[in-house]
Amino acid sequence: MRLSRYFLPVTKEPPADAQVASHKLMLRAGLVRQTSAGIYAWLPLGHRVLKKIESIVREEQDRAGAVEMLMPTIQSAEYWRDTGRYEAYGPEMLRIEDRQGRDLLYGPTNEDMITALFRDGAKSYRDLPRMLYHIQWKFRDEIRPRFGVMRGREFLMKDAYSFDLDEAGGRISYNKQFVAYLRTFKRMGLRAIPMQADTGPIGGDLSHEFIILADSGESEVFFHKNWEQDRSYDVDVEDTAALQGFVDSMTADYAATDEKRDEEREAELGDTLLKSRGIEVGHIFFFGDKYTKALGMQVSGPGGDMITPLMGSYGVGVSRLVGAIIEASHDDNGIVWPEPVAPYKVGLINMRADDEACVATSDDLYAKLEAAGVEVLYDDRDERGGAKFATMDLIGLPWQLVIGPRGIKNGVVELTNRATGEREELSAESALEKLV
Amino acid sequence: MRLSRYFLPVTKEPPADAQVASHKLMLRAGLVRQTSAGIYAWLPLGHRVLKKIESIVREEQDRAGAVEMLMPTIQSAEYWRDTGRYEAYGPEMLRIEDRQGRDLLYGPTNEDMITALFRDGAKSYRDLPRMLYHIQWKFRDEIRPRFGVMRGREFLMKDAYSFDLDEAGGRISYNKQFVAYLRTFKRMGLRAIPMQADTGPIGGDLSHEFIILADSGESEVFFHKNWEQDRSYDVDVEDTAALQGFVDSMTADYAATDEKRDEEREAELGDTLLKSRGIEVGHIFFFGDKYTKALGMQVSGPGGDMITPLMGSYGVGVSRLVGAIIEASHDDNGIVWPEPVAPYKVGLINMRADDEACVATSDDLYAKLEAAGVEVLYDDRDERGGAKFATMDLIGLPWQLVIGPRGIKNGVVELTNRATGEREELSAESALEKLV
Repeated sequence: MRLSRYFLPVTKEPPADAQVASHKLMLRAGLVRQTSAGIYAWLPLGHRVLKKIESIVREEQDRAGAVEMLMPTIQSAEYWRDTGRYEAYGPEMLRIEDRQGRDLLYGPTNEDMITALFRDGAKSYRDLPRMLYHIQWKFRDEIRPRFGVMRGREFLMKDAYSFDLDEAGGRISYNKQFVAYLRTFKRMGLRAIPMQADTGPIGGDLSHEFIILADSGESEVFFHKNWEQDRSYDVDVEDTAALQGFVDSMTADYAATDEKRDEEREAELGDTLLKSRGIEVGHIFFFGDKYTKALGMQVSGPGGDMITPLMGSYGVGVSRLVGAIIEASHDDNGIVWPEPVAPYKVGLINMRADDEACVATSDDLYAKLEAAGVEVLYDDRDERGGAKFATMDLIGLPWQLVIGPRGIKNGVVELTNRATGEREELSAESALEKLV
Repeated sequence: MRLSRYFLPVTKEPPADAQVASHKLMLRAGLVRQTSAGIYAWLPLGHRVLKKIESIVREEQDRAGAVEMLMPTIQSAEYWRDTGRYEAYGPEMLRIEDRQGRDLLYGPTNEDMITALFRDGAKSYRDLPRMLYHIQWKFRDEIRPRFGVMRGREFLMKDAYSFDLDEAGGRISYNKQFVAYLRTFKRMGLRAIPMQADTGPIGGDLSHEFIILADSGESEVFFHKNWEQDRSYDVDVEDTAALQGFVDSMTADYAATDEKRDEEREAELGDTLLKSRGIEVGHIFFFGDKYTKALGMQVSGPGGDMITPLMGSYGVGVSRLVGAIIEASHDDNGIVWPEPVAPYKVGLINMRADDEACVATSDDLYAKLEAAGVEVLYDDRDERGGAKFATMDLIGLPWQLVIGPRGIKNGVVELTNRATGEREELSAESALEKLV
């Protein structure tokens, strides 16, 4: 993409009401613009990041055996009345009346609707187990939206739902999602630590939040220093015993949010106990027959008996992750995108748009990178070099490829790694080889 | 995908309130379920078609030079008050009050917001021309939603917006979208005929509806029989003169909706005039400075003068197209998907899930098709063969590959083309070769 044909309104100063680094940087780097309190438009660069994150989430859901579908944003209040949640939900639910006077709402989550849809379509034990998911915009009318897309009102969420015939099956589905979550966040360049979370009235140990570490995190978290090491998430999820063993090993090391601290265990840990701030990026939850019972979902068993399926739900904050990744990966000059979620892999800078040789070399490299399928943002504008560098640092693409008149004379271009700052001069051919 | 792990609730009888073929078939084939009047959940199979259509629309927008972004579904009423449209829009706008008492609405379209966003980011003539688009859910509170997703309340639309410095530039943007639309619909296996449409108060000839022909279409259309021939849409859109010549040639042959008929021209046409029913699947429109003026958008010109940009908008009904394609392509047994939008290319049927040789051959073909990147839906369930055939005909995948015990004895499988009904027996290897 040529910047001369793009829409990238970068700014030097963030608005005064932006408090956290990711919010400031997302506004400065032209990723988003607020259109109402807690509601954002995703400008082209931000939209690309959102789509990359969405793709990784989708691929790992598919790999876990979940099947994608798409429920609407606007729901009938009937679904929520049937489960008793309509009145209970409180003022965060955006309630709407249509022109016929029917009660609608903008879905904050989808347990009620998915249970009704699956109930109407699944009749036999052979229709289970199943995992269904969708990636759809949600709305929660936060009283005080803040931190940009990290706590917005309209936000993109992946929510998956599992239906099983018994608790053992429910645990397998839960474990598959547990693994999918570890893999999902790792692929985004994040280390997410699963921490036991409240399960509410039904009890049990099947609820985890996935927390990434960032100095500006919303809450304090406490964990064993083993969590600082890289971990492999290589396990055959179709092997039930291996899967359970893997999940057990992943929950063996202490990790707790502020609300779930265990003073005794922490005392034992001594200086292997670490403390940080964290951001919740995912939450998984097994809640049994809460919704299937309320909505009268039953399937016929092998012997003609009727079975009430057990459910779990599994959420990832897709739009929130854009902010969370920036919190975990930025410096004084701007964003430092992990390559798998970077909007483009390479920022190509022509230092002199008025120099024929520079234009020719830059155009040639651009064409070759595009032809090789490398995602490249080409700053071909007639601007000062300093401003171009500042923009590239701010938007944080993994590689900067710089073409200047002096280099061309010497037969070299300059390649800089945004994360490490490493810079090298090399021939255009060698640069291409490194980037393709 | 194995049907034993999928969610495909097909039904024999459509609900009584479904009138048109596409609505009946979408319900019967388990593509969608209605969750409130005019609001649909997209079940897994329907979701895949929606995504295929979305991808084709996206690719042709990108090819036309439009840049993707994403605006939120919920808009502040302020944008619409600034353009004077808030009161004017009428009861089809879903108006919402949030917990703070602020006026919001579910966007039925985005001219107001995109103009404000682009105004705040584009300052100089060098920031133009630009085309921006998004693919986002919209809501129109139809008094009488009907025909399933063809006239729903929550629907997915691609809307693009062009910003140009002068009318000549605006015409180029318009022409580029004109070509993009022809290509988009052709890739979906549709013949869409551009028909001149009302331009409203600003006049001019720059407004076209794109209509596909279907017996069950919502309105009557009239056109020269030349439109029955296949056309090539091969033109270099960067060559302004060639582009204009191409658009002129495409609008030379008579084509008009009921509202825009020209009796004199029709009389001249004699028996070269054809009549059919049609469905509108796209609408493009140049409206000049209507919104830029209302919202005070100006950019500085080369000489320091201030220029009010001119705009066009370009809509495709993405979710509506799912229904429209079915209207144009179905038979008594079900849907007949054009391959580019089919949810899967191949339906693999194992006739005998209790026969070891059938299972082995089917599993092997499934693995090989998947490995080759062929999208295949594998009916591996323990059901009667007749029911499996009926389901495959109903969901309309382009190819049916059938494995049965008699064929295996003779070393053959059966391959059927859903559209033509052509059936042949051939070796498993030959079938693979044909499908990969």
